[in-house]
Amino acid sequence: MKRGLFIAFEGIEGVGKSTQAKNLYDFFLEKGMEVFLTREPGGTDLGESIREILINGGAMHEITELLLMLASRNELVRTKILPYLDKGKYVISDRFYMSSLAYQGGGRGLNLKFVNRLNKIVTAGLKPDLTFILDMPVDASFKRKSGKRDRFEQEVSLFYEKVRKTYLYLAKKAPKKVKIIDAGKESKEVFKEVLFYVKQYLLTKGVIL
Amino acid sequence: MKRGLFIAFEGIEGVGKSTQAKNLYDFFLEKGMEVFLTREPGGTDLGESIREILINGGAMHEITELLLMLASRNELVRTKILPYLDKGKYVISDRFYMSSLAYQGGGRGLNLKFVNRLNKIVTAGLKPDLTFILDMPVDASFKRKSGKRDRFEQEVSLFYEKVRKTYLYLAKKAPKKVKIIDAGKESKEVFKEVLFYVKQYLLTKGVIL
Repeated sequence: MKRGLFIAFEGIEGVGKSTQAKNLYDFFLEKGMEVFLTREPGGTDLGESIREILINGGAMHEITELLLMLASRNELVRTKILPYLDKGKYVISDRFYMSSLAYQGGGRGLNLKFVNRLNKIVTAGLKPDLTFILDMPVDASFKRKSGKRDRFEQEVSLFYEKVRKTYLYLAKKAPKKVKIIDAGKESKEVFKEVLFYVKQYLLTKGVIL
Repeated sequence: MKRGLFIAFEGIEGVGKSTQAKNLYDFFLEKGMEVFLTREPGGTDLGESIREILINGGAMHEITELLLMLASRNELVRTKILPYLDKGKYVISDRFYMSSLAYQGGGRGLNLKFVNRLNKIVTAGLKPDLTFILDMPVDASFKRKSGKRDRFEQEVSLFYEKVRKTYLYLAKKAPKKVKIIDAGKESKEVFKEVLFYVKQYLLTKGVIL
């Protein structure tokens, strides 16, 4: 069976995940690959409805928040990511399972093992081949974001400090598959580093891009 | 600590759950009790948004469906049911955790133990003091429902046969707390039976209504 490539971008708000995900998407397209760019929460019609509730639905219990994230992820994995990967396509996601660990786990204080157990149900065990954590001090990331702040962005910086620390902790546990990239650099420099790791990974699979 | 009373109505579509829940609500009100009538999915602003997705959001993976039900239940339990019960209020719900076992478990084929495990997370172990399963042959219940059918009601009757069987199985496992009532009887007769069990239960708690 063919098996495509799955890459996730993670990190707190304002670090440039969407930009870098799009850069990589464009790069793959130029190289003639079949590639699917998606995001979490969302990525399916149903997931986008759930995203709307999560972002604008007001305060909610932390387990409710987790379950909605998981519902969106389950639908995305089962109806898009897994079928595409099985067809040999490349998939890029702006956030994936690690966000639940960092936000609902580290940030909201839910037990990481508990979140992991639920994550496994909805991902069917799937993990990205490579995850890029775009990292930046919380204060600096706040300055990058402008305009109206949504519910998540209004959280105090203490929350984001915990989220950031959880990301860094997760990266240390799996250094081969999870790369921390300094997101304070110029966007072009960040993308260079992303591409370096992607090409390096693909080489080990016999793919030269 | 005071502890109120929690009663759930269960059963397939068209058996009169909402009617009987409302009857009991009115009865308690008349008796001067503080009572909260709710439903699942829904019962909170957030839960009603989730209900909208579940009913009109189109086809979805069975685990996605389960997670959305659980998200709605978690919010209802944590923000309404538990606080109200702690204040000594009576709570009546049109559907509760058993619906997930019957529909996503029995109906959609998810493992009952798996559904139970997730149910326990969102209910914090809470079970109704009494659950009434309004039971009726599937064909008869279909005839009761008229008008536009929603996604669940469009499911074939085989699905409902499995749901019904799961309800009956669950009732047999806990005959003290789960009462099967023949919903083919006149509505007034059904409510008489409901009241009989409710009064009987309250008597054991020293409450005479």
